[in-house]
Amino acid sequence: MNELIDPRDHLAVSALLYAYARSFDGNDPDGVAALFTDDCEIDYGPEFAPIRGRAAVVPSIAPGLRERFAATSHHISNVWVEPTDSGADVVAYVYAWHRYRDGSPDSELWGQYHATAVRVADGWRLRSLRLLAAGSYRFHRERMHPTPRRPVD
Amino acid sequence: MNELIDPRDHLAVSALLYAYARSFDGNDPDGVAALFTDDCEIDYGPEFAPIRGRAAVVPSIAPGLRERFAATSHHISNVWVEPTDSGADVVAYVYAWHRYRDGSPDSELWGQYHATAVRVADGWRLRSLRLLAAGSYRFHRERMHPTPRRPVD
Amino acid sequence: MNELIDPRDHLAVSALLYAYARSFDGNDPDGVAALFTDDCEIDYGPEFAPIRGRAAVVPSIAPGLRERFAATSHHISNVWVEPTDSGADVVAYVYAWHRYRDGSPDSELWGQYHATAVRVADGWRLRSLRLLAAGSYRFHRERMHPTPRRPVD
Repeated sequence: MNELIDPRDHLAVSALLYAYARSFDGNDPDGVAALFTDDCEIDYGPEFAPIRGRAAVVPSIAPGLRERFAATSHHISNVWVEPTDSGADVVAYVYAWHRYRDGSPDSELWGQYHATAVRVADGWRLRSLRLLAAGSYRFHRERMHPTPRRPVD
Repeated sequence: MNELIDPRDHLAVSALLYAYARSFDGNDPDGVAALFTDDCEIDYGPEFAPIRGRAAVVPSIAPGLRERFAATSHHISNVWVEPTDSGADVVAYVYAWHRYRDGSPDSELWGQYHATAVRVADGWRLRSLRLLAAGSYRFHRERMHPTPRRPVD
Repeated sequence: MNELIDPRDHLAVSALLYAYARSFDGNDPDGVAALFTDDCEIDYGPEFAPIRGRAAVVPSIAPGLRERFAATSHHISNVWVEPTDSGADVVAYVYAWHRYRDGSPDSELWGQYHATAVRVADGWRLRSLRLLAAGSYRFHRERMHPTPRRPVD
Protein backbone atom coordinates (compact mmCIF):
# COMPACT_ATOMS: atom_id res chain seq x y z
CA MET A 1 0.00 0.00 0.00
CA ASN A 2 1.46 3.35 -0.95
CA GLU A 3 1.51 6.27 1.44
CA LEU A 4 -1.73 8.20 1.40
CA ILE A 5 -1.90 11.95 1.44
CA ASP A 6 -3.62 13.98 4.15
CA PRO A 7 -7.39 14.15 3.55
CA ARG A 8 -7.31 17.96 3.24
CA ASP A 9 -4.71 17.75 0.52
CA HIS A 10 -6.56 14.91 -1.16
CA LEU A 11 -9.66 17.07 -1.19
CA ALA A 12 -7.80 20.12 -2.50
CA VAL A 13 -6.14 18.16 -5.29
CA SER A 14 -9.40 16.40 -6.19
CA ALA A 15 -11.03 19.82 -6.33
CA LEU A 16 -8.54 20.89 -9.00
CA LEU A 17 -9.76 18.08 -11.24
CA TYR A 18 -13.40 18.82 -10.46
CA ALA A 19 -12.81 22.49 -11.27
CA TYR A 20 -11.10 21.42 -14.48
CA ALA A 21 -14.22 19.44 -15.42
CA ARG A 22 -16.62 22.25 -14.50
CA SER A 23 -14.61 24.86 -16.36
CA PHE A 24 -14.21 22.65 -19.42
CA ASP A 25 -17.88 21.65 -19.42
CA GLY A 26 -18.82 25.29 -18.78
CA ASN A 27 -16.91 26.49 -21.86
CA ASP A 28 -14.66 28.54 -19.58
CA PRO A 29 -11.08 28.27 -20.87
CA ASP A 30 -9.90 31.01 -18.48
CA GLY A 31 -11.20 28.90 -15.61
CA VAL A 32 -9.22 25.92 -16.90
CA ALA A 33 -6.01 27.97 -17.25
CA ALA A 34 -6.31 29.35 -13.70
CA LEU A 35 -5.88 25.83 -12.30
CA PHE A 36 -2.39 25.43 -13.73
CA THR A 37 1.09 26.68 -12.83
CA ASP A 38 2.94 29.17 -15.02
CA ASP A 39 5.21 26.40 -16.26
CA CYS A 40 2.50 23.78 -16.78
CA GLU A 41 2.37 21.10 -19.45
CA ILE A 42 -0.88 19.61 -20.75
CA ASP A 43 -0.65 16.59 -23.02
CA TYR A 44 -3.78 15.63 -24.92
CA GLY A 45 -1.49 13.89 -27.48
CA PRO A 46 -0.03 11.90 -29.01
CA GLU A 47 -0.81 13.72 -32.24
CA PHE A 48 -0.78 17.16 -30.61
CA ALA A 49 2.35 18.74 -29.17
CA PRO A 50 1.89 19.34 -25.43
CA ILE A 51 0.57 22.73 -24.39
CA ARG A 52 3.44 24.38 -22.52
CA GLY A 53 2.93 27.24 -20.08
CA ARG A 54 -0.25 28.69 -18.68
CA ALA A 55 -0.25 31.52 -21.21
CA ALA A 56 -0.72 28.92 -23.95
CA VAL A 57 -3.71 27.19 -22.36
CA VAL A 58 -6.52 29.54 -23.37
CA PRO A 59 -5.46 29.95 -27.01
CA SER A 60 -4.98 26.19 -27.28
CA ILE A 61 -8.30 25.04 -25.89
CA ALA A 62 -10.74 27.92 -26.41
CA PRO A 63 -11.42 27.27 -30.12
CA GLY A 64 -12.31 23.62 -29.54
CA LEU A 65 -14.50 24.38 -26.54
CA ARG A 66 -16.33 27.05 -28.52
CA GLU A 67 -16.54 25.53 -31.96
CA ARG A 68 -16.53 21.78 -31.57
CA PHE A 69 -18.70 21.04 -28.57
CA ALA A 70 -22.33 21.87 -27.89
CA ALA A 71 -22.07 20.21 -24.46
CA THR A 72 -19.68 17.99 -22.55
CA SER A 73 -19.70 16.21 -19.19
CA HIS A 74 -16.51 14.98 -17.54
CA HIS A 75 -17.17 12.53 -14.70
CA ILE A 76 -14.05 12.25 -12.52
CA SER A 77 -13.65 9.31 -10.14
CA ASN A 78 -11.05 6.97 -8.56
CA VAL A 79 -8.95 9.98 -7.52
CA TRP A 80 -5.59 8.70 -6.30
CA VAL A 81 -3.20 11.25 -4.80
CA GLU A 82 0.30 10.32 -3.68
CA PRO A 83 2.62 12.74 -1.93
CA THR A 84 5.95 13.54 -3.59
CA ASP A 85 8.84 15.82 -2.67
CA SER A 86 7.43 18.61 -4.77
CA GLY A 87 3.70 18.05 -4.22
CA ALA A 88 1.66 15.11 -5.41
CA ASP A 89 1.24 12.61 -8.20
CA VAL A 90 -2.35 12.12 -9.26
CA VAL A 91 -4.19 9.43 -11.18
CA ALA A 92 -7.92 9.88 -11.71
CA TYR A 93 -10.42 8.13 -13.92
CA VAL A 94 -12.56 10.11 -16.32
CA TYR A 95 -15.72 9.13 -18.16
CA ALA A 96 -16.51 11.86 -20.63
CA TRP A 97 -19.59 12.44 -22.77
CA HIS A 98 -19.62 14.92 -25.66
CA ARG A 99 -22.26 16.47 -27.90
CA TYR A 100 -21.03 18.16 -31.07
CA ARG A 101 -22.10 21.40 -32.64
CA ASP A 102 -21.91 19.96 -36.15
CA GLY A 103 -24.51 17.30 -35.38
CA SER A 104 -22.11 14.35 -35.25
CA PRO A 105 -23.40 11.61 -32.93
CA ASP A 106 -22.61 12.03 -29.24
CA SER A 107 -19.33 10.44 -28.18
CA GLU A 108 -17.95 8.82 -25.06
CA LEU A 109 -14.46 8.30 -23.69
CA TRP A 110 -13.26 6.08 -20.84
CA GLY A 111 -9.84 7.06 -19.60
CA GLN A 112 -7.54 8.49 -17.00
CA TYR A 113 -5.80 11.72 -16.14
CA HIS A 114 -2.23 11.35 -14.96
CA ALA A 115 -1.22 14.62 -13.34
CA THR A 116 1.17 16.30 -10.97
CA ALA A 117 0.09 18.98 -8.53
CA VAL A 118 2.15 21.44 -6.55
CA ARG A 119 1.42 23.44 -3.43
CA VAL A 120 1.37 27.19 -3.90
CA ALA A 121 0.78 30.07 -1.52
CA ASP A 122 -3.02 29.89 -1.67
CA GLY A 123 -3.61 26.21 -2.31
CA TRP A 124 -2.67 23.80 -5.06
CA ARG A 125 -2.14 24.01 -8.81
CA LEU A 126 -1.77 21.45 -11.57
CA ARG A 127 1.73 21.39 -13.02
CA SER A 128 1.07 18.68 -15.57
CA LEU A 129 -1.91 16.84 -16.96
CA ARG A 130 -1.93 13.99 -19.45
CA LEU A 131 -5.05 12.38 -20.89
CA LEU A 132 -4.99 8.63 -21.54
CA ALA A 133 -7.79 6.54 -23.01
CA ALA A 134 -8.82 2.95 -22.33
CA GLY A 135 -11.30 3.29 -25.17
CA SER A 136 -13.85 5.51 -26.80
CA TYR A 137 -17.03 5.42 -28.85
CA ARG A 138 -17.61 7.77 -31.77
CA PHE A 139 -14.95 10.11 -30.37
CA HIS A 140 -13.66 12.73 -32.82
CA ARG A 141 -10.08 11.56 -32.34
CA GLU A 142 -8.59 8.25 -33.43
CA ARG A 143 -5.29 8.15 -31.57
CA MET A 144 -4.93 8.65 -27.84
CA HIS A 145 -2.29 7.88 -25.25
CA PRO A 146 -3.29 4.42 -23.99
CA THR A 147 -4.03 3.73 -20.33
CA PRO A 148 -1.45 1.39 -18.78
CA ARG A 149 -2.12 -2.31 -19.30
CA ARG A 150 0.33 -5.18 -19.07
CA PRO A 151 0.84 -6.63 -22.52
CA VAL A 152 -0.29 -10.19 -23.10
CA ASP A 153 2.63 -12.35 -24.19
CA MET B 1 -9.38 28.70 -5.49
CA ASN B 2 -12.45 28.72 -3.32
CA GLU B 3 -12.35 27.80 0.32
CA LEU B 4 -12.65 24.09 0.87
CA ILE B 5 -14.76 22.56 3.56
CA ASP B 6 -13.42 20.35 6.35
CA PRO B 7 -12.94 16.75 5.14
CA ARG B 8 -15.42 15.43 7.71
CA ASP B 9 -18.11 17.77 6.46
CA HIS B 10 -17.23 17.02 2.86
CA LEU B 11 -17.67 13.34 3.61
CA ALA B 12 -20.96 13.86 5.46
CA VAL B 13 -22.39 16.00 2.66
CA SER B 14 -21.16 13.57 -0.02
CA ALA B 15 -22.80 10.78 1.96
CA LEU B 16 -26.17 12.57 1.64
CA LEU B 17 -25.89 12.36 -2.13
CA TYR B 18 -24.73 8.75 -2.01
CA ALA B 19 -27.66 7.89 0.27
CA TYR B 20 -29.97 9.72 -2.15
CA ALA B 21 -28.67 7.51 -4.96
CA ARG B 22 -28.94 4.30 -2.96
CA SER B 23 -32.46 5.10 -1.76
CA PHE B 24 -33.60 6.14 -5.23
CA ASP B 25 -32.01 3.10 -6.88
CA GLY B 26 -33.41 0.92 -4.08
CA ASN B 27 -36.99 2.09 -4.69
CA ASP B 28 -37.04 3.54 -1.18
CA PRO B 29 -38.85 6.89 -1.31
CA ASP B 30 -38.94 7.10 2.51
CA GLY B 31 -35.16 6.82 2.51
CA VAL B 32 -34.96 9.69 0.01
CA ALA B 33 -37.29 11.87 2.08
CA ALA B 34 -35.30 11.27 5.28
CA LEU B 35 -32.29 13.04 3.76
CA PHE B 36 -34.11 16.36 3.43
CA THR B 37 -35.11 19.17 5.79
CA ASP B 38 -38.74 19.86 6.65
CA ASP B 39 -38.69 22.93 4.42
CA CYS B 40 -36.83 21.35 1.51
CA GLU B 41 -37.25 22.09 -2.18
CA ILE B 42 -36.49 19.55 -4.92
CA ASP B 43 -36.51 20.77 -8.49
CA TYR B 44 -36.55 18.12 -11.21
CA GLY B 45 -38.11 20.73 -13.54
CA PRO B 46 -38.54 22.77 -15.59
CA GLU B 47 -41.86 21.21 -16.56
CA PHE B 48 -42.63 20.05 -13.01
CA ALA B 49 -43.30 22.44 -10.15
CA PRO B 50 -40.67 21.99 -7.42
CA ILE B 51 -41.49 19.55 -4.63
CA ARG B 52 -41.81 21.71 -1.51
CA GLY B 53 -41.46 20.32 2.01
CA ARG B 54 -40.37 16.88 3.14
CA ALA B 55 -43.96 15.72 3.54
CA ALA B 56 -44.40 16.10 -0.21
CA VAL B 57 -41.36 14.05 -1.19
CA VAL B 58 -42.74 10.52 -0.85
CA PRO B 59 -46.06 11.16 -2.63
CA SER B 60 -44.20 13.00 -5.40
CA ILE B 61 -41.56 10.40 -6.17
CA ALA B 62 -42.96 7.05 -5.04
CA PRO B 63 -45.23 6.48 -8.06
CA GLY B 64 -42.41 7.04 -10.56
CA LEU B 65 -39.96 4.87 -8.63
CA ARG B 66 -42.52 2.10 -8.44
CA GLU B 67 -44.22 2.28 -11.80
CA ARG B 68 -41.73 3.71 -14.26
CA PHE B 69 -38.42 2.11 -13.41
CA ALA B 70 -37.38 -1.53 -13.31
CA ALA B 71 -33.87 -0.51 -12.23
CA THR B 72 -31.76 2.64 -11.99
CA SER B 73 -28.14 3.43 -11.12
CA HIS B 74 -27.05 6.94 -10.14
CA HIS B 75 -23.27 7.37 -10.24
CA ILE B 76 -22.29 10.47 -8.26
CA SER B 77 -18.87 12.05 -8.75
CA ASN B 78 -16.99 15.39 -8.76
CA VAL B 79 -18.54 16.29 -5.40
CA TRP B 80 -17.79 19.94 -4.70
CA VAL B 81 -18.81 21.29 -1.28
CA GLU B 82 -18.34 24.92 -0.35
CA PRO B 83 -19.07 26.27 3.12
CA THR B 84 -21.70 28.98 3.46
CA ASP B 85 -23.14 30.88 6.44
CA SER B 86 -25.99 28.41 6.75
CA GLY B 87 -24.21 25.19 5.76
CA ALA B 88 -22.83 24.35 2.35
CA ASP B 89 -23.39 24.75 -1.37
CA VAL B 90 -22.93 21.54 -3.30
CA VAL B 91 -22.31 20.73 -6.94
CA ALA B 92 -21.96 17.09 -7.90
CA TYR B 93 -21.95 15.30 -11.22
CA VAL B 94 -24.36 12.46 -11.88
CA TYR B 95 -24.31 9.80 -14.56
CA ALA B 96 -27.60 7.93 -14.38
CA TRP B 97 -28.70 4.76 -16.12
CA HIS B 98 -32.36 3.68 -16.19
CA ARG B 99 -34.26 0.54 -17.17
CA TYR B 100 -38.00 0.89 -17.70
CA ARG B 101 -40.79 -1.37 -16.64
CA ASP B 102 -42.68 -0.85 -19.90
CA GLY B 103 -39.83 -2.25 -21.96
CA SER B 104 -38.66 1.08 -23.40
CA PRO B 105 -34.94 1.00 -24.21
CA ASP B 106 -32.59 1.78 -21.33
CA SER B 107 -31.76 5.46 -20.98
CA GLU B 108 -28.79 7.50 -19.78
CA LEU B 109 -28.40 11.00 -18.41
CA TRP B 110 -25.26 13.06 -17.88
CA GLY B 111 -25.82 15.95 -15.51
CA GLN B 112 -25.30 17.69 -12.22
CA TYR B 113 -27.01 18.13 -8.90
CA HIS B 114 -26.87 21.65 -7.49
CA ALA B 115 -27.81 21.45 -3.84
CA THR B 116 -27.65 23.16 -0.49
CA ALA B 117 -27.04 21.31 2.75
CA VAL B 118 -27.54 22.41 6.32
CA ARG B 119 -26.13 21.16 9.57
CA VAL B 120 -28.67 19.69 11.98
CA ALA B 121 -28.37 18.18 15.46
CA ASP B 122 -27.32 14.73 14.27
CA GLY B 123 -25.52 15.50 11.03
CA TRP B 124 -26.47 17.15 7.76
CA ARG B 125 -29.61 17.36 5.64
CA LEU B 126 -30.32 18.51 2.10
CA ARG B 127 -32.34 21.71 2.00
CA SER B 128 -32.53 21.97 -1.75
CA LEU B 129 -31.68 19.81 -4.73
CA ARG B 130 -31.91 20.72 -8.38
CA LEU B 131 -31.22 18.35 -11.27
CA LEU B 132 -29.55 19.77 -14.38
CA ALA B 133 -28.69 17.87 -17.55
CA ALA B 134 -25.79 18.27 -19.97
CA GLY B 135 -27.47 15.71 -22.17
CA SER B 136 -29.32 12.44 -22.27
CA TYR B 137 -29.96 9.40 -24.45
CA ARG B 138 -33.41 7.85 -24.79
CA PHE B 139 -34.44 9.53 -21.52
CA HIS B 140 -38.18 9.65 -20.88
CA ARG B 141 -38.12 13.42 -20.51
CA GLU B 142 -37.41 15.95 -23.21
CA ARG B 143 -36.85 19.15 -21.26
CA MET B 144 -34.39 19.49 -18.42
CA HIS B 145 -32.68 22.35 -16.64
CA PRO B 146 -29.42 22.77 -18.57
CA THR B 147 -26.02 22.52 -16.91
CA PRO B 148 -24.18 25.87 -16.94
CA ARG B 149 -22.22 26.57 -20.12
CA ARG B 150 -21.06 29.95 -21.42
CA PRO B 151 -22.96 30.76 -24.57
CA VAL B 152 -21.00 30.99 -27.79
CA ASP B 153 -21.37 34.44 -29.35
CA MET C 1 -27.78 9.07 9.31
CA ASN C 2 -25.31 6.29 9.94
CA GLU C 3 -22.02 6.92 11.68
CA LEU C 4 -19.35 8.08 9.29
CA ILE C 5 -15.82 6.80 9.37
CA ASP C 6 -12.77 9.00 9.91
CA PRO C 7 -11.74 10.71 6.65
CA ARG C 8 -8.32 9.03 6.69
CA ASP C 9 -9.90 5.62 6.92
CA HIS C 10 -12.46 6.53 4.27
CA LEU C 11 -9.60 7.51 2.00
CA ALA C 12 -7.61 4.36 2.75
CA VAL C 13 -10.59 2.10 2.11
CA SER C 14 -11.56 4.00 -1.05
CA ALA C 15 -7.96 3.60 -2.21
CA LEU C 16 -8.34 -0.19 -1.97
CA LEU C 17 -11.17 -0.05 -4.49
CA TYR C 18 -9.29 2.38 -6.72
CA ALA C 19 -6.24 0.08 -6.61
CA TYR C 20 -8.53 -2.85 -7.44
CA ALA C 21 -9.74 -0.97 -10.52
CA ARG C 22 -6.25 0.06 -11.61
CA SER C 23 -4.85 -3.43 -11.15
CA PHE C 24 -7.79 -5.05 -12.93
CA ASP C 25 -7.71 -2.53 -15.79
CA GLY C 26 -3.92 -2.87 -15.91
CA ASN C 27 -4.08 -6.67 -16.38
CA ASP C 28 -2.23 -7.07 -13.08
CA PRO C 29 -3.79 -10.00 -11.19
CA ASP C 30 -0.97 -9.96 -8.61
CA GLY C 31 -1.84 -6.36 -7.85
CA VAL C 32 -5.49 -7.35 -7.34
CA ALA C 33 -4.54 -10.22 -5.02
CA ALA C 34 -2.29 -8.00 -2.89
CA LEU C 35 -5.32 -5.94 -1.82
CA PHE C 36 -7.00 -8.88 -0.09
CA THR C 37 -6.56 -10.72 3.20
CA ASP C 38 -5.32 -14.30 3.32
CA ASP C 39 -8.84 -15.50 4.12
CA CYS C 40 -10.65 -13.33 1.59
CA GLU C 41 -13.77 -14.19 -0.36
CA ILE C 42 -14.60 -12.68 -3.75
CA ASP C 43 -18.03 -13.32 -5.19
CA TYR C 44 -18.57 -12.51 -8.86
CA GLY C 45 -21.43 -15.07 -8.86
CA PRO C 46 -24.09 -16.30 -8.82
CA GLU C 47 -22.99 -18.85 -11.40
CA PHE C 48 -19.40 -18.94 -10.16
CA ALA C 49 -18.42 -20.32 -6.77
CA PRO C 50 -16.80 -17.59 -4.68
CA ILE C 51 -13.01 -17.31 -4.84
CA ARG C 52 -11.79 -18.25 -1.37
CA GLY C 53 -8.38 -17.24 -0.04
CA ARG C 54 -5.81 -14.89 -1.50
CA ALA C 55 -3.85 -17.77 -3.00
CA ALA C 56 -6.82 -18.52 -5.25
CA VAL C 57 -7.19 -14.97 -6.58
CA VAL C 58 -4.50 -14.92 -9.26
CA PRO C 59 -5.32 -18.35 -10.78
CA SER C 60 -9.02 -17.42 -10.77
CA ILE C 61 -8.81 -14.04 -12.47
CA ALA C 62 -5.60 -14.06 -14.51
CA PRO C 63 -6.96 -16.11 -17.46
CA GLY C 64 -9.96 -13.81 -17.95
CA LEU C 65 -7.90 -10.64 -17.65
CA ARG C 66 -5.43 -11.97 -20.17
CA GLU C 67 -7.64 -13.80 -22.64
CA ARG C 68 -11.03 -12.14 -22.55
CA PHE C 69 -10.37 -8.43 -22.32
CA ALA C 70 -8.44 -6.13 -24.62
CA ALA C 71 -9.18 -3.19 -22.30
CA THR C 72 -11.42 -2.38 -19.35
CA SER C 73 -12.21 0.72 -17.30
CA HIS C 74 -13.81 0.50 -13.85
CA HIS C 75 -15.16 3.83 -12.64
CA ILE C 76 -15.74 3.70 -8.87
CA SER C 77 -17.97 6.26 -7.18
CA ASN C 78 -20.45 6.76 -4.30
CA VAL C 79 -17.98 5.17 -1.87
CA TRP C 80 -19.78 4.56 1.42
CA VAL C 81 -17.69 3.27 4.32
CA GLU C 82 -19.22 2.40 7.66
CA PRO C 83 -17.15 1.40 10.69
CA THR C 84 -17.76 -2.03 12.20
CA ASP C 85 -16.21 -3.90 15.12
CA SER C 86 -13.77 -5.62 12.82
CA GLY C 87 -13.12 -2.85 10.29
CA ALA C 88 -15.59 -1.42 7.84
CA ASP C 89 -18.50 -2.26 5.59
CA VAL C 90 -18.25 -0.74 2.15
CA VAL C 91 -20.72 -0.05 -0.62
CA ALA C 92 -19.43 1.57 -3.77
CA TYR C 93 -20.91 2.07 -7.21
CA VAL C 94 -19.10 0.86 -10.29
CA TYR C 95 -19.61 1.75 -13.92
CA ALA C 96 -17.48 -0.59 -16.00
CA TRP C 97 -16.64 -0.54 -19.69
CA HIS C 98 -15.07 -3.53 -21.46
CA ARG C 99 -13.47 -4.18 -24.83
CA TYR C 100 -13.04 -7.80 -25.86
CA ARG C 101 -10.14 -9.51 -27.52
CA ASP C 102 -12.42 -11.62 -29.71
CA GLY C 103 -13.96 -8.56 -31.35
CA SER C 104 -17.32 -8.78 -29.56
CA PRO C 105 -18.93 -5.34 -29.19
CA ASP C 106 -17.83 -3.31 -26.19
CA SER C 107 -19.93 -3.87 -23.08
CA GLU C 108 -21.03 -1.81 -20.10
CA LEU C 109 -22.12 -2.68 -16.59
CA TRP C 110 -23.79 -0.51 -13.96
CA GLY C 111 -23.49 -1.97 -10.48
CA GLN C 112 -22.16 -1.96 -6.98
CA TYR C 113 -19.41 -3.54 -4.94
CA HIS C 114 -20.43 -4.66 -1.47
CA ALA C 115 -17.26 -5.27 0.50
CA THR C 116 -15.75 -5.59 3.94
CA ALA C 117 -12.36 -4.16 4.83
CA VAL C 118 -10.13 -4.87 7.80
CA ARG C 119 -7.30 -2.92 9.34
CA VAL C 120 -3.92 -4.63 9.19
CA ALA C 121 -0.47 -3.62 10.41
CA ASP C 122 0.36 -1.43 7.43
CA GLY C 123 -3.06 -0.20 6.35
CA TRP C 124 -6.25 -1.84 5.19
CA ARG C 125 -7.14 -4.94 3.19
CA LEU C 126 -10.32 -6.20 1.57
CA ARG C 127 -11.70 -9.27 3.30
CA SER C 128 -14.69 -9.74 1.02
CA LEU C 129 -15.92 -8.30 -2.24
CA ARG C 130 -19.17 -9.04 -4.00
CA LEU C 131 -20.20 -7.66 -7.39
CA LEU C 132 -23.87 -6.79 -7.95
CA ALA C 133 -25.42 -5.43 -11.14
CA ALA C 134 -28.29 -3.02 -11.67
CA GLY C 135 -28.02 -3.75 -15.37
CA SER C 136 -25.67 -4.25 -18.26
CA TYR C 137 -25.38 -3.83 -22.01
CA ARG C 138 -23.77 -6.46 -24.22
CA PHE C 139 -22.00 -7.90 -21.18
CA HIS C 140 -20.55 -11.38 -21.64
CA ARG C 141 -22.50 -12.69 -18.65
CA GLU C 142 -26.23 -13.10 -18.36
CA ARG C 143 -26.77 -13.67 -14.66
CA MET C 144 -25.47 -11.37 -11.97
CA HIS C 145 -26.25 -10.76 -8.32
CA PRO C 146 -28.86 -7.98 -8.44
CA THR C 147 -28.37 -4.65 -6.69
CA PRO C 148 -30.86 -4.16 -3.82
CA ARG C 149 -34.24 -2.78 -4.88
CA ARG C 150 -37.52 -3.01 -2.99
CA PRO C 151 -39.87 -5.24 -4.90
CA VAL C 152 -43.00 -3.68 -6.32
CA ASP C 153 -46.09 -5.36 -4.94
